[in-house]
Amino acid sequence: MDKTLSYISLGGIGEVTKNLHVYQFGDEILLVDCGLGFADETMIGVDLLLPDISYLQKAVTQNKKKIVGMVISHGHEDHMGALPFVLPQFPEFPIFGSSFTATMANEKLEDFGLRPAVREISFNHDVQIGSFTISLIHVTHSIPDTSHIVIKTPLGNFYHGSDFKFDLTPFSGKKTDFQAIAKAGSMGIRCLMSECLGSERPGYTPSEQTLQEPFIQAIRDCPGKCIVTTYSSNISRLQQIITIAESMNKRICFVGRSIIKTKELARQKGLLAYNKSREVQPDQVKRYKDNELVLFVAGSQGQENSALTRIVNGEHRDIQLHKQDVIIFSADPIPGNEVSVYSVIDAVSKLGIKVLYSDIGGNFHVSGHGSSQELMLLMSLVKPRQVLPISGGYRHMVAYRELAKQAGFSEKDVILAQAGQEIIFYKDRVQYGQKIPLRHIYVDEVSGEQMEHFVLHDRQKISQEGIVAIIAEIEGETGILTGMPEIVSRGLPSKDSQEITKVVAEALKKAFPQKSQISDWNYLRKQVREIAEKAIYEGFSRRPLVLPVVIET
Amino acid sequence: MDKTLSYISLGGIGEVTKNLHVYQFGDEILLVDCGLGFADETMIGVDLLLPDISYLQKAVTQNKKKIVGMVISHGHEDHMGALPFVLPQFPEFPIFGSSFTATMANEKLEDFGLRPAVREISFNHDVQIGSFTISLIHVTHSIPDTSHIVIKTPLGNFYHGSDFKFDLTPFSGKKTDFQAIAKAGSMGIRCLMSECLGSERPGYTPSEQTLQEPFIQAIRDCPGKCIVTTYSSNISRLQQIITIAESMNKRICFVGRSIIKTKELARQKGLLAYNKSREVQPDQVKRYKDNELVLFVAGSQGQENSALTRIVNGEHRDIQLHKQDVIIFSADPIPGNEVSVYSVIDAVSKLGIKVLYSDIGGNFHVSGHGSSQELMLLMSLVKPRQVLPISGGYRHMVAYRELAKQAGFSEKDVILAQAGQEIIFYKDRVQYGQKIPLRHIYVDEVSGEQMEHFVLHDRQKISQEGIVAIIAEIEGETGILTGMPEIVSRGLPSKDSQEITKVVAEALKKAFPQKSQISDWNYLRKQVREIAEKAIYEGFSRRPLVLPVVIET
Repeated sequence: MDKTLSYISLGGIGEVTKNLHVYQFGDEILLVDCGLGFADETMIGVDLLLPDISYLQKAVTQNKKKIVGMVISHGHEDHMGALPFVLPQFPEFPIFGSSFTATMANEKLEDFGLRPAVREISFNHDVQIGSFTISLIHVTHSIPDTSHIVIKTPLGNFYHGSDFKFDLTPFSGKKTDFQAIAKAGSMGIRCLMSECLGSERPGYTPSEQTLQEPFIQAIRDCPGKCIVTTYSSNISRLQQIITIAESMNKRICFVGRSIIKTKELARQKGLLAYNKSREVQPDQVKRYKDNELVLFVAGSQGQENSALTRIVNGEHRDIQLHKQDVIIFSADPIPGNEVSVYSVIDAVSKLGIKVLYSDIGGNFHVSGHGSSQELMLLMSLVKPRQVLPISGGYRHMVAYRELAKQAGFSEKDVILAQAGQEIIFYKDRVQYGQKIPLRHIYVDEVSGEQMEHFVLHDRQKISQEGIVAIIAEIEGETGILTGMPEIVSRGLPSKDSQEITKVVAEALKKAFPQKSQISDWNYLRKQVREIAEKAIYEGFSRRPLVLPVVIET
Repeated sequence: MDKTLSYISLGGIGEVTKNLHVYQFGDEILLVDCGLGFADETMIGVDLLLPDISYLQKAVTQNKKKIVGMVISHGHEDHMGALPFVLPQFPEFPIFGSSFTATMANEKLEDFGLRPAVREISFNHDVQIGSFTISLIHVTHSIPDTSHIVIKTPLGNFYHGSDFKFDLTPFSGKKTDFQAIAKAGSMGIRCLMSECLGSERPGYTPSEQTLQEPFIQAIRDCPGKCIVTTYSSNISRLQQIITIAESMNKRICFVGRSIIKTKELARQKGLLAYNKSREVQPDQVKRYKDNELVLFVAGSQGQENSALTRIVNGEHRDIQLHKQDVIIFSADPIPGNEVSVYSVIDAVSKLGIKVLYSDIGGNFHVSGHGSSQELMLLMSLVKPRQVLPISGGYRHMVAYRELAKQAGFSEKDVILAQAGQEIIFYKDRVQYGQKIPLRHIYVDEVSGEQMEHFVLHDRQKISQEGIVAIIAEIEGETGILTGMPEIVSRGLPSKDSQEITKVVAEALKKAFPQKSQISDWNYLRKQVREIAEKAIYEGFSRRPLVLPVVIET
């Protein structure tokens, strides 16, 4: 029987995040990306999801297949954040990525005490990986050095069009390599795997340049501290705002571990430049007048432990809000984060402090993903036989199909796969193969702030780890814990169980009398959870599932 | 000391829902609205919120004040849904509302076994309530007979501008009474309390008429069943689509208890007209060809128990989805419901069935709330001395302040109150009074579908009612329960506790083997909760807090 080329998504189909794509030729497996998933607000006590790699484990151990290598498209968490969880489970294989992608991914591995494993390769440079030959093409997105991947196989060429937009005037000046895309197209492409998140949006995504004037005006007119929150990895955005701040002789300050780490990496790689003498450390902010300062603060998604949320709740050691300050959201809520983000915006509004965000206009953010016309332009440049939308919800994939039909593809040439569905490419036809069952796998938050407490925690281990429910009454107006919290535990040795009740009650008692100004119900609940988890872990080296129930009295 | 007029919001400031506004003159209290709040997805096991009425209870019992009456602005749950909870706690007082408002509110009271209490009054008709004189002005919104309320007091006139938009071409033909608004304005208005939900949106909200062509085209071109979901109380929307369906000789069918009840009430009041012979009952749908049918299905917010969610999950007794069907969302997600709504849209997309919703354009919904220009037009017509935004989050109130400043109000004449903050109007000045502490009070869902199981359930009673956590492993691909669920209970008599474990395990075992096609993680979790709650209530007449933890294997 002739060898076939098959494609399977173990994550990143029917969902935006958790990207892990499998290209398989004979017994050789090439992986593209290895990302985390983001939990939504309905998943109690869950922060992150991992792709289910049991198919790969079985392929390697039972079916004598071999992972010949991996390519990473860009340095976002949902494309490389699962590396520390996945790599240790397999024999070593080569991993490739562009310069900043390799930097971000290797940093991630080192955070977990693992060796750097991602090799930096240049754009437009063929790399042989078993029977596959790959090369990276530079595209614009919201992190430097983002790539599309051309994958040559004995059964034809594939174009893996991961997250991108076509910004013709990117602030960094580093444009999409349209020539390289067109050249790949002229080579003949069997199938274009294309991201599809923006397929519902008509037209083109506006350029980063459209943010220039609004930021100049906002920073110039800000009577107090100008606090900007954006994705930590959006280096070009940081550079754009820093450049404006420098031109006005402002001092700049980075607050929050994730943003401090990323800007350092970007500086080292020459992707971020500013006058070091203008930088102020968070604990020195008080020495300057408020209106001399532009702060870059992590937490644009309303994350409960982020610097921004702590500042807004009056709990940050170094940064206090004053009436004249202005907070700018240079990011939109990721779907599923609306409640958290708007509760921060409402909390700021309630404090009487000005907050600028997309819904009130002003233009402080543009998406990193292309809209309909850009997705169609990619189809036109690549001219594939088939298209297969990836990295979107099922609704985005359906919207992408409509675009493809408008672009002249027949319905049968638009492949709507499901996660785990094998798509087999023969010489002259395409066919559905096996459907691999995929499980949801959850892990706790692993952002910088929490790293020290991090323990990998598969929710399926609850029966071994136990469960602790905490019912705490907290005075809404003052944030003071009233009475003793009710604590219910199970699945723990009964001696531990009693001790845990005592220890958690004490930890909560200790934490809450000093607190105040907490006006965010959700934040409070997560605080209770975190305090309890920490106390239990420190006292008993246990990580039971903690379910907080906070009652405001 | 001279008497003053004070205004306090016990709900409906800093939030869109849970409206309960207090106008107080001397020892007389006039209430406006009495609504439920909607919980967001971060509030575990909580569906609805009640306004905290302890201030009113104290005022009546200790401070010898008297509730002289209540006016209800319109028949939406967040303006009258708390009546059954609040009324029994006070001596009787007169309640007034427009015709359909009274119908909806009285129906609600009867659902709870209470006597109808809301008296119907006509628009533009003075009603004396103690020292207050009120009259209703008709405005357009998304439910018939919506009113603004002019409140004359010995300390000046107030204009309570509850939810509205200025649709110049409403489908019902029943327009905003601009003359009456202008007349109120010319009388001299002390303060305009105005809703502010749309204050972030520029321009005007489009008219309902803009939906006409898109619906004609969608229904005409639909090859299967055309399934429309909207708010049950949006009678004008229903009438608009029914009229189109009738013109194409379609049969119509209403699915879901809430929509069936509301359309019956609207028919009785002469607000909804169609040829009865074209109506099909849900259990007769199978007798007709799919493309003969237009279905109106409850569940536009992705509610876990709604007819729509059950249809999409293949669990509805009467309605099955077929490939040719089209589902139209004629409603946007209420903030906080995004995850639920998009998970339904994704589930439909995954089934390969067409779904039309706002993000992909097509124009099947317009908001019931006015945008910036309409809010400013109301200011111009009413010409108040002061404005005070209500019925919005703090961010909306801040955006409203910007509009008011554009409209010529000085910053000091824009009153940004907080929930529970007393605002005292003296003859010649305004002053902040006491700040009443307000608690969050939670109740279980009371939608039509669940009415039979309804028990008022204050979360503060958890210590009396107990808590049951369920850890169930369910096979993601098939929806089958694997192994015995882990059940942890506390706060229940220990005999009950053991029995409950047994009963819940059996109920879950029984429920899940027959299920299939469940692709919605959130839905699954809520199903587990509901099955367990029902089993516990039926077997033990208990309503502990049930925390479901579903693990997909």
